[in-house]
Amino acid sequence: MRNTATEVEVLAFDIFGTVVDWHGSIAREIRTAHPAVDADAFALAWRAGYQPAMRRVMAGELPWTLIDDLHRMILEEVLVQFGLTHLDEPARADLNRVWHRLDPWPDVVQGLTRLKERFVLCTLSNGNLNLLTRLSKRAGLPWDCILSAEVFRAYKPDPRTYGGVAQTFDVLPEQVMLVAAHHNDLEGARARGLQTAYIERPLEFGARNPKDVSPHLANHLHARDLLDMADQLGC
Amino acid sequence: MRNTATEVEVLAFDIFGTVVDWHGSIAREIRTAHPAVDADAFALAWRAGYQPAMRRVMAGELPWTLIDDLHRMILEEVLVQFGLTHLDEPARADLNRVWHRLDPWPDVVQGLTRLKERFVLCTLSNGNLNLLTRLSKRAGLPWDCILSAEVFRAYKPDPRTYGGVAQTFDVLPEQVMLVAAHHNDLEGARARGLQTAYIERPLEFGARNPKDVSPHLANHLHARDLLDMADQLGC
Repeated sequence: MRNTATEVEVLAFDIFGTVVDWHGSIAREIRTAHPAVDADAFALAWRAGYQPAMRRVMAGELPWTLIDDLHRMILEEVLVQFGLTHLDEPARADLNRVWHRLDPWPDVVQGLTRLKERFVLCTLSNGNLNLLTRLSKRAGLPWDCILSAEVFRAYKPDPRTYGGVAQTFDVLPEQVMLVAAHHNDLEGARARGLQTAYIERPLEFGARNPKDVSPHLANHLHARDLLDMADQLGC
Repeated sequence: MRNTATEVEVLAFDIFGTVVDWHGSIAREIRTAHPAVDADAFALAWRAGYQPAMRRVMAGELPWTLIDDLHRMILEEVLVQFGLTHLDEPARADLNRVWHRLDPWPDVVQGLTRLKERFVLCTLSNGNLNLLTRLSKRAGLPWDCILSAEVFRAYKPDPRTYGGVAQTFDVLPEQVMLVAAHHNDLEGARARGLQTAYIERPLEFGARNPKDVSPHLANHLHARDLLDMADQLGC
């Protein structure tokens, strides 16, 4: 693990998987509304369309598109796959907004509240501002500022997103620490000069698909959860 | 006064003068640091440069420039005018950040906290994201989202800013209410289809320059302060 430099001023948080439990939240809604469907597989299938859809945008194959709209495009395919094409338009629109209703992991509200005492806390998510705002309001997440790929018109891991945080807050890249449960996101941030904190989320993909959460030495910090991170930073 | 429609979902707040007391905050700092200077006049002179500077940007005479940088440009002239050219670079940079340290009017934190129970609260200010974030963190302002001219790359009263709020939150223009202490800002919002709330801030320009705060019938709501606004909306 690298030394944690003391001059970090801004903590920028990845959201899906790091702060909120997308898999558990989606699976719970599907299980309740459609008991015959494999809810675990439904959540995974929906999420699996996410990276390819963003790559199509970044490759210029699709125009700039908000995540809410990418989620909806993917949902149309997933509904076919899981035999739910009988859902009408309002039901599809409501289901798509499940991404606005994702629950935070149990350590998050308390962890953020402690970290906020010392750092500027912002989101840095590929989710759009509306999604992030509604989700955060519902869950009571105490951000100082909501930043999104929407503001930079580029999806992570595009360097403009990581660099954009430092530029927005008028600090050096090394004064920003990206907090994420995904090594590729953290690698992108380090390549742009940010510090990085890895958060273990072994159940991100559900209990049937435990994730390898072993430390990567390149990260400046490795924490079990946000309470552990606050402990390590003396917050 | 027009009827207040019930379906407003988002309250978008102007900041300088409406939420924070720029005149009093700047005058206090100047009075403490430079007792020989007319602090009241200094604050007014600095703010007087604001609209002309933004107009130069919107006319294309200047490239897109953040308010922190426009404030600094204006400050250089004001320092000459008030005999403060002996200030060195760190002192000038620190003085410019007084805009990050503006105090809210006394009703603001409680008023926002009550309004937040029912509405999505965002800023819609010409101030840049960094300024708005630092100011809000220091003052404890409980926004759901910080929006700024910086996000829309246009300064109010450009219609892209007002329309941008509705678009960002995926609601109709009439589901957004702009809250401001300035009639020209509110007019711009109404022209784009937003609802409007006028907040009386009779001392915005200091006790020596009381402001006419009489109601304009075009506004959907007229309130003494944010507590009165919360009362009127039953929050």
